[in-house]
Amino acid sequence: MSDHDVTSLTIAVLGGTGPQGRGLARRFAAAGLEVVLGSRDASRAADAATALAEVGRVRGASNAEAAAAGDVVLVVVPWDGHEELLRSLTEELAGKIVVDCVNPLGFDKQGAYALPVEEGSATQQAAAILTGSTVVGAFHNVSAVLLEDPTVERVDTDVLVLGDDREATDLVQALADVVPGMRGMYGGRLRNAHQVEALTANLISINRRYKAHAGVRVTDV
Amino acid sequence: MSDHDVTSLTIAVLGGTGPQGRGLARRFAAAGLEVVLGSRDASRAADAATALAEVGRVRGASNAEAAAAGDVVLVVVPWDGHEELLRSLTEELAGKIVVDCVNPLGFDKQGAYALPVEEGSATQQAAAILTGSTVVGAFHNVSAVLLEDPTVERVDTDVLVLGDDREATDLVQALADVVPGMRGMYGGRLRNAHQVEALTANLISINRRYKAHAGVRVTDV
Repeated sequence: MSDHDVTSLTIAVLGGTGPQGRGLARRFAAAGLEVVLGSRDASRAADAATALAEVGRVRGASNAEAAAAGDVVLVVVPWDGHEELLRSLTEELAGKIVVDCVNPLGFDKQGAYALPVEEGSATQQAAAILTGSTVVGAFHNVSAVLLEDPTVERVDTDVLVLGDDREATDLVQALADVVPGMRGMYGGRLRNAHQVEALTANLISINRRYKAHAGVRVTDV
Repeated sequence: MSDHDVTSLTIAVLGGTGPQGRGLARRFAAAGLEVVLGSRDASRAADAATALAEVGRVRGASNAEAAAAGDVVLVVVPWDGHEELLRSLTEELAGKIVVDCVNPLGFDKQGAYALPVEEGSATQQAAAILTGSTVVGAFHNVSAVLLEDPTVERVDTDVLVLGDDREATDLVQALADVVPGMRGMYGGRLRNAHQVEALTANLISINRRYKAHAGVRVTDV
């Protein structure tokens, strides 16, 4: 849904050794983009990158090195470490588009539920910390299982892109569009990010009930 | 997705004279269900019912009469009047399945946004007030424009049904299933209703950006 040429970009994935980070890295690498996986432990990131070597150009680094290397930086860390990590990287991330993909969820025996976030959402927390960056929210509702599965050729889902900067949301939509089956769609301003993050709890309930890897499509668009 | 026979039910629609209420009434009446539109002003409800007479069995009543008449009672009132109305109808609604369809949203020049709700969501507020009823949340994300348009034969959307009572959520899923194109789907427990209500703000943003009447489909189910 956008004409941005994003294939020449380098994508950094902070927290890139978890399932969601690895899965997104796989898809962007397969689309020809250069990917730098970041982790607290650079050697773990290197191992994860090696596992993706046959897919495309993926290398591992520390989170700080990855943040510095990326043209666009995806944040895919656990919610627990979100605030601390971003506070440590304000310099590396200055001037860049930062795409927050984090879902603040709690889990108990009844399943997943949304955690309250003082700033309203993980994305708004990122925006409050990274005042020198342009923060966008996206890729919240995409199944890590599907992203990571090499036999899944198309990830048929819409990616709601939240943000207050049109150029940045357009670019992130274009980034989603490079993945076969995926469609980037503007989903509203940062103040409406919370419910998109939290909706992942509902998708987890749906997955449990229907034995699925649920995602979201928006109709009539 | 359910085998409940719901076509013999009487559906009450509280706040049935607004676009969403009229639209849902139209679809259930068209599917052969008996519908009672409720309004603060019974004569306005009667007028709205008359306008739907050629669609099916629809009659108007006061909200209290409608609540008493319905086997299943949909709450489609503006958020402003939600708490007060439900407090006034606890007796009429006792023992019934009450389906809350209300989205607590605010609007300003930047569009729609989710309002905070002390109980967590409109649906949870209803459950806190209607302790003698079984409260379910559903039909939050369905376009009133499409529901009301007599030229729209299929309303192609999923209806996420939220609730803690399996029998009740199954029945409300079956209710959604009677509308051509619509699919009722379990969407999680009451504690995860907020984000489904709030997601309507994102759909309003999407409608504005893409000139659409957006709805939601869940993939892989």
